[in-house]
Order: sequence, then C-alpha cells, then structure tokens
Amino acid sequence: MKKVALILSGCGVYDGSEIYESVLTMLSLENHGASYQCFAPNIEQLHVINHLAGEVAEGESRNVLVESARLARGEVKDLAQAQAADFDAVIVPGGFGAAKNLSDFAVNGAQMSVQKDVLQFVQAMHKAGKPTGLICIAPTMAARIFGDGVKCTVGNDADVATAINNMGALHQTCLVDEVCIDEAMKLVTTPAYMLAGSIAEAAKGINRCVREVLNMA
Amino acid sequence: MKKVALILSGCGVYDGSEIYESVLTMLSLENHGASYQCFAPNIEQLHVINHLAGEVAEGESRNVLVESARLARGEVKDLAQAQAADFDAVIVPGGFGAAKNLSDFAVNGAQMSVQKDVLQFVQAMHKAGKPTGLICIAPTMAARIFGDGVKCTVGNDADVATAINNMGALHQTCLVDEVCIDEAMKLVTTPAYMLAGSIAEAAKGINRCVREVLNMA
Repeated sequence: MKKVALILSGCGVYDGSEIYESVLTMLSLENHGASYQCFAPNIEQLHVINHLAGEVAEGESRNVLVESARLARGEVKDLAQAQAADFDAVIVPGGFGAAKNLSDFAVNGAQMSVQKDVLQFVQAMHKAGKPTGLICIAPTMAARIFGDGVKCTVGNDADVATAINNMGALHQTCLVDEVCIDEAMKLVTTPAYMLAGSIAEAAKGINRCVREVLNMA
Repeated sequence: MKKVALILSGCGVYDGSEIYESVLTMLSLENHGASYQCFAPNIEQLHVINHLAGEVAEGESRNVLVESARLARGEVKDLAQAQAADFDAVIVPGGFGAAKNLSDFAVNGAQMSVQKDVLQFVQAMHKAGKPTGLICIAPTMAARIFGDGVKCTVGNDADVATAINNMGALHQTCLVDEVCIDEAMKLVTTPAYMLAGSIAEAAKGINRCVREVLNMA
C-alpha cells in the first residue's frame, strides 16, 4: 500500500487549506488503495479570516497545526517531524493557506519564499525520486521547490501565471478536469478551485492528480 | 432540480460539523443532480475544542454561523431566515456540533432540547411533508423533532441508543453502509462516523442516505 504525506495549511479556504480539496484528496487516495498521513507546520497563521464576512478577524490568532487537526479529525503531525523515507509521495491541497502559511505568495508574489518545513520535506521527497502533487494555488511554490524550468498549472489566472513565470517556472494553461505533468520533476498539478464551480468538478481534476501521483510513486 | 437545506453546526468534528460527513453529503447531492444551501444558527459554540490536543481551548469562543462558513466557502445563511417553502428536503450532518450547538445532548443526554431555529425549521419541513436526513449523532434530535415512536439509528452505540429510546424514539441497530428509514415520518438516518473507519466507508452510508432522502422529496 502506497503511503502519501498530505501537507495541510489550516482549515478553511481563505486562511487555511481548502476543505473540499483536502477531503476529495483523502477520499481519492482511499479509493485508489493508498494510505495517507496529514502534516502541517507548527506555526501561527498569517491571519484569521471570518469566512462569513470575508474579512480579517482583528485580534484573533490561530495555529496552522491545531487548525489543520480539525480537517484531519485530530490525525495530524508536525511537519518538522516528517521523514521522506516513510512516504512514497507528497500532496499539497490548495486554499489560501498554501499562499499565506506554507509560503508568503499572498503577500510577496514573485518575491515569495516557502515555509522552511515545507521546503525541506518536499525537497527531500524530490531528492529521493518521489512524486509531488500540488493543487489549486499550491503550484505557486513549484519554482522555489523544484527550480527553474519546472512545468506547472494553476488553471488560467493571468496574474498568478505571470508571477509563476517570473519565478522561473513554466506555467501551462489547463482545464479544471486536467492535470499538468512535469515528468522529469515528477510533479503533478491541477487547478481545482482556481477554476472549479462545484465539488464534483473539483473532484475530477483531483482524482486525476492523485492517480498520476500514485502512478509515479 | 431538487433543493436541499443543509444545517451545519460549526467546522470540526469535536465542536462543530464533522467535516468529512458534510463534504460527502454535498458531493453526493451534486452527484444526484440536487442543489443545496447551507444554513447554521447564529449562536456561540458551546465551546472550542483544540482538535490537536483533544481538549477545551479555555478562553476561546467561536460563532456557529461564522465557523460553518469555513465549511461552505462562505456560502452559508442564518438558519433563522430559512423558509421551508424554498426547499424539498433537509439534511443535518453529524459531528459533536449536532450534540453541542444544534442541541444540548452532549450536556443533558435524554433531558436534551433542540436549538430553537433547528427545531422550528425541521418541524416546518416535516409539517410540509418534506423528508429529513440525520447523519451520525444528529438522530439524537429525532424524538424532540418528530415525537414518540420515530425510528432512527446512530449505529450500535448502547449508551446513545438507550438515551434515544428514553426520549421516546425507537433506536434501530444499523451498519455503517446502511440507513434506517421511518417512512411515515419521512426520516432517513445513517451512522457515518459513529461507526466509520474511513472516509470511503462513511461515504457509502451517506450516499445511501442522500439517495433515499431525494427519493422521498
């Protein structure tokens, strides 16, 4: 049974992991006969967004690992403890948490950096020849993790695509039910809620991403 | 297209809606060609549970409607505004939020009462001849909503079953991939994470629950 590390970034689309994408990834892994372990960095969130108002909740702070535990029924571990040797692949669902907590793309755009535990673990997986799946906005981390020339997609968002290209990656336009595959880097990316209008639509690309990642593992 | 009202109770298994059950319910509704609108009561949560530690987060408070918005990508409305005439069916996913926020079963057991907006809306739906689905621990509300003799299941938990029977409902033992149907009351219940060991397992009962509810709508 293939074991996949999932990296979460909190719980909720506007300040953490996109919940539907995360659950669809877990369900797809189960349906493909793979097991998974969730991880998250033990850091404070960039901020807390009131998801009803769509505004920053002033004065509130939440921890990425603690909030990720909501998404994983408590079954989450500190990403700093993750060992590449224990896993066959790694997948990072989207949500703004990928651009606010796992990296600072939401703040710094093409001048972004990737959170150190994320960078260390995904690069260790890559060095060990293991595949990576990045979903939704998470592919903004591809250039920093894999270096110049890596191919990836966030769908068709012109601004994000430009930022990705400015960092040295090669953005590919892609439909919601498609994936972009960089065979050399063993990287699979899919737009999910960068384009999806429904859960069932997001599921199509995510199922395909999971399948391709597992095929390469 | 059939329209279903989903009642959420926050975001996270230990103090709100069970996330997997909620997402699986939405996905199943989409896959069955139905649409849905999420609602939640605009009240404070009983408490906040740190899902990593499994303990109450002292001094923290969160609002059920605001946290439910995380689970619904912001697309949630105040349950007090819901009109039975606008929907063909209502479904309540589980999670401790159903027993802590939508009712006080977690505190008062068989002496429980159901939160007023929940009671009013689900009874209005029932009076209008429309079906209800209650998932996981949510069927503990059945006796208070539907009255004596209503049949329901939470799987095979002896303590909860006893409390349900003490309130005047008739608990039926049920497997994770099964549903209990009270035809007269148009009530469908399924154990989900009262028994499920995985998302794929929970999906089986939830898909069946959604199908039966839609069949009666």
